[in-house]
Amino acid sequence: MNKNFTVIIAGGDLRQIYLAKYLSAFFNVKTIGLKEDNLPTEKDKADILILPIIVSNDGVHLNAPFSEKPVSLSSLSSYVLPEGTVCSGKLSPEIKQIFTGAGLKTVDYFSREELIIKNCIPTAEGALQIAMEEIPTTVSGSKVLVIGYGRVGKAVSHLFSSVGATVFTAARKYSDLAWCETLGINGIKTEQAVEDLGKYDIIINTVPAVVLDRNALMTVSPEALIIDLASKPGGVDFDFSKELGLNVIWALSLPLNVKISNKRFSKKLSLSF
Amino acid sequence: MNKNFTVIIAGGDLRQIYLAKYLSAFFNVKTIGLKEDNLPTEKDKADILILPIIVSNDGVHLNAPFSEKPVSLSSLSSYVLPEGTVCSGKLSPEIKQIFTGAGLKTVDYFSREELIIKNCIPTAEGALQIAMEEIPTTVSGSKVLVIGYGRVGKAVSHLFSSVGATVFTAARKYSDLAWCETLGINGIKTEQAVEDLGKYDIIINTVPAVVLDRNALMTVSPEALIIDLASKPGGVDFDFSKELGLNVIWALSLPLNVKISNKRFSKKLSLSF
Amino acid sequence: MNKNFTVIIAGGDLRQIYLAKYLSAFFNVKTIGLKEDNLPTEKDKADILILPIIVSNDGVHLNAPFSEKPVSLSSLSSYVLPEGTVCSGKLSPEIKQIFTGAGLKTVDYFSREELIIKNCIPTAEGALQIAMEEIPTTVSGSKVLVIGYGRVGKAVSHLFSSVGATVFTAARKYSDLAWCETLGINGIKTEQAVEDLGKYDIIINTVPAVVLDRNALMTVSPEALIIDLASKPGGVDFDFSKELGLNVIWALSLPLNVKISNKRFSKKLSLSF
Amino acid sequence: MNKNFTVIIAGGDLRQIYLAKYLSAFFNVKTIGLKEDNLPTEKDKADILILPIIVSNDGVHLNAPFSEKPVSLSSLSSYVLPEGTVCSGKLSPEIKQIFTGAGLKTVDYFSREELIIKNCIPTAEGALQIAMEEIPTTVSGSKVLVIGYGRVGKAVSHLFSSVGATVFTAARKYSDLAWCETLGINGIKTEQAVEDLGKYDIIINTVPAVVLDRNALMTVSPEALIIDLASKPGGVDFDFSKELGLNVIWALSLPLNVKISNKRFSKKLSLSF
Repeated sequence: MNKNFTVIIAGGDLRQIYLAKYLSAFFNVKTIGLKEDNLPTEKDKADILILPIIVSNDGVHLNAPFSEKPVSLSSLSSYVLPEGTVCSGKLSPEIKQIFTGAGLKTVDYFSREELIIKNCIPTAEGALQIAMEEIPTTVSGSKVLVIGYGRVGKAVSHLFSSVGATVFTAARKYSDLAWCETLGINGIKTEQAVEDLGKYDIIINTVPAVVLDRNALMTVSPEALIIDLASKPGGVDFDFSKELGLNVIWALSLPLNVKISNKRFSKKLSLSF
Repeated sequence: MNKNFTVIIAGGDLRQIYLAKYLSAFFNVKTIGLKEDNLPTEKDKADILILPIIVSNDGVHLNAPFSEKPVSLSSLSSYVLPEGTVCSGKLSPEIKQIFTGAGLKTVDYFSREELIIKNCIPTAEGALQIAMEEIPTTVSGSKVLVIGYGRVGKAVSHLFSSVGATVFTAARKYSDLAWCETLGINGIKTEQAVEDLGKYDIIINTVPAVVLDRNALMTVSPEALIIDLASKPGGVDFDFSKELGLNVIWALSLPLNVKISNKRFSKKLSLSF
Repeated sequence: MNKNFTVIIAGGDLRQIYLAKYLSAFFNVKTIGLKEDNLPTEKDKADILILPIIVSNDGVHLNAPFSEKPVSLSSLSSYVLPEGTVCSGKLSPEIKQIFTGAGLKTVDYFSREELIIKNCIPTAEGALQIAMEEIPTTVSGSKVLVIGYGRVGKAVSHLFSSVGATVFTAARKYSDLAWCETLGINGIKTEQAVEDLGKYDIIINTVPAVVLDRNALMTVSPEALIIDLASKPGGVDFDFSKELGLNVIWALSLPLNVKISNKRFSKKLSLSF
Repeated sequence: MNKNFTVIIAGGDLRQIYLAKYLSAFFNVKTIGLKEDNLPTEKDKADILILPIIVSNDGVHLNAPFSEKPVSLSSLSSYVLPEGTVCSGKLSPEIKQIFTGAGLKTVDYFSREELIIKNCIPTAEGALQIAMEEIPTTVSGSKVLVIGYGRVGKAVSHLFSSVGATVFTAARKYSDLAWCETLGINGIKTEQAVEDLGKYDIIINTVPAVVLDRNALMTVSPEALIIDLASKPGGVDFDFSKELGLNVIWALSLPLNVKISNKRFSKKLSLSF
């Protein structure tokens, strides 16, 4: 145990609390913006400040749902040693400036490729949970189209396939289609897939480009479920899908407002690290 | 199309509506207790009366959630031809008497072994959905104990295993354990399993006997999720589990009141045929 | 270690040698008909005599491939204590009489249901190995028909499915077909399957009745591989299949003569315990 | 059908014969160095000359196992139109010069990423077949180490895992290890894996660098099977493995001499396109 090394954990949810407990076996750990804080005193200058994956919802205050009063981001720098390090999820340029302007280094969790990959599992499970909640039949036996075979597309394709859905994965590259087949998924060229979407019960988009445009949406079965997992701007023409009365769930929409299933989903997402 | 053969579909949910649409291509179909009923007239005496899987919630009225006014079970017999047939899920002796007393034959959907087996898929998916909703981490990577390797135990074991959980299935017969291993699941003797439940994140019971008694429950991790899929009386000492503050979900508890996830689950269950 | 309890291991292959090594940590172990025998002396009367799964190839001598000279079955009884036990695979009535006539008890390994089930894994792997050796393309992507969904049929169906073949399993009972689908296999009624065998690359029979009769065989593709795993008399009209020039492998044909792949297969089979 | 377009298929095995049959529905097809050749006449100048994947075994003659007499590579150019195209597997610079020197274009099948990927399936099945032939027990239940998570490593890992082996995949990159886990395989750092190889029943190398050096080999169980799938120089110190008496199979060793299983394997490999 190195009590000369101070870690401050600020904001976030249960994971941060677990982390505080875990690290306190090794370091001098203090907390801010959690339940029953063990606040840093004057002499507890942090070698490392650990922020949550989603640092802030408004750009000004710390994302600290357990805290009774708001914590401003700008107040945090003073707890860190000169040249100390701030770890967090992706920072906007403005927030980053708050810390670097104070002479601190910043590290983005998502600069670690393996974390991004591992985060695909909860994303895929979240999509499966949504599907189970939304469709009136079982996922087993349903026809699923997954658009894109990047990280998320891969995880989603294999998860839905393993619960007994018949999965078709749409990709642009022949090499991706070859991989699909090697791993037991039906590969289909994207341009061909979007021409006839009528046969799918569930359509999951993972590509951040409007693949499901007006023409494509018009071929979707009115009973189908569409889940958009792509980061902004997403891959679905939302206005038109609404006009058509389609059931579209924008599962990665931030801020996390839209619907219960989304909230649960987002919670799961962030809890997965 | 045989318009001389009359089918009356009474009560139930969307499935019954779909069924009415489907059968009307072949027979003279009338409906009672659904949306926008096509009510039988005097001359539409039913050769077959089709009731929902769950016939009644109170033993007196038809289970007819779409109906604006209650439909009494005793009123239904008069729509059926003498010696006509009533198809339904399992009937209590009292309800059965209503129909047999009127000279009708009754047929239980669940007397068809293949239906019972197929119904295990939505049951298993329902359990997976509950698990996804309830645990703070992913099901992939979690340690799951399934108690029992009957129909439901089999389906649940394989579904959880295929989404990446490490599944242990507890059974009493060595032959069941051998099957588990043949199909890629860890088999464990039930008496041995219940001695140390502390390592499981999720415990799913499918055996209708109190396997999870006081002694067993005391070894369960306080953070574990217990799902009881067994028919009454279930396999969990509920009072004691409450005392311990364990998270137990009696997933097949009827009537379908307890919680949202249960409602969704039950809906899914019945929609799976 | 109980040196007062004597086990004699006689005949068989590597497994018996392993077994001798293993048991010698617990008991007084002697061997007959293996490599470098540790022969029993006058005082080493066996409490238990352990024979191989296949006891004899000619009904007279012990199946002892490692032995330089033949060992007669009738000579073995004298090594066992009165009322001692002889463990082995299935005995013919004549061989059984040799031991029971000497006052000994006999125990058949295969009276243990779990052993029979576990033996399905090597049987299934043997079938997969044969398929890989015999067909000019990959098993992944091939169309496979498995006839029968008993123990062997189950193991074979799931193994071929898991390596990427499209598996259809033919069964007579609707409940078996329902299980197939629950576990991700295509179920098909046997009588319907045998009417059109032309689309299968590999046909594996597990039913001990002539399912593949003349009419059925005439619909088989000339390039297909047929593997008969059923015990005698098997399920293929062999004479007619020869006339048609079909590639049929009677994989469980005993005695183990026919072809290299069969020999390897049989070896594997017995090594699986 | 375009009889004005001429395709000449030269050398190779059954696949080339199938190809000839298939293409003759569309083009004017001639063959050289196959069974019952339909030889090109003076007027059948080829628009495209199709050579086998392995063009030559000696650098001088066509790889034409079905041909009764040798066909020299240099004789082939004269059958092709000026500026015609020669399709084949990878050409040595010397062989390539034969064709380009005659003004022809060459196309390498393996310049298509998707072909390389798809070829991983037969490679993986070949490895599985070897394993089934070589180990005395079942692959199901065995402990397997796959070194490398490139194309072949991926396909091999997933195939062995799906038949019930416990697979550990060794990779250097954390992102590869994350992918392993996402897809249900145990990931392990290569340097850590090679320090203790004693627990594996089967070790499959896919990395073209000597990973299994003297130090590593000394930790391998004497009963283990090593399969080297890496292209030359392979990943195993062969001389030292021989000294240790280990069972090593250099499955991609060309020329195809060593053993029967290798021959079968190579045949399968090339038949997989």
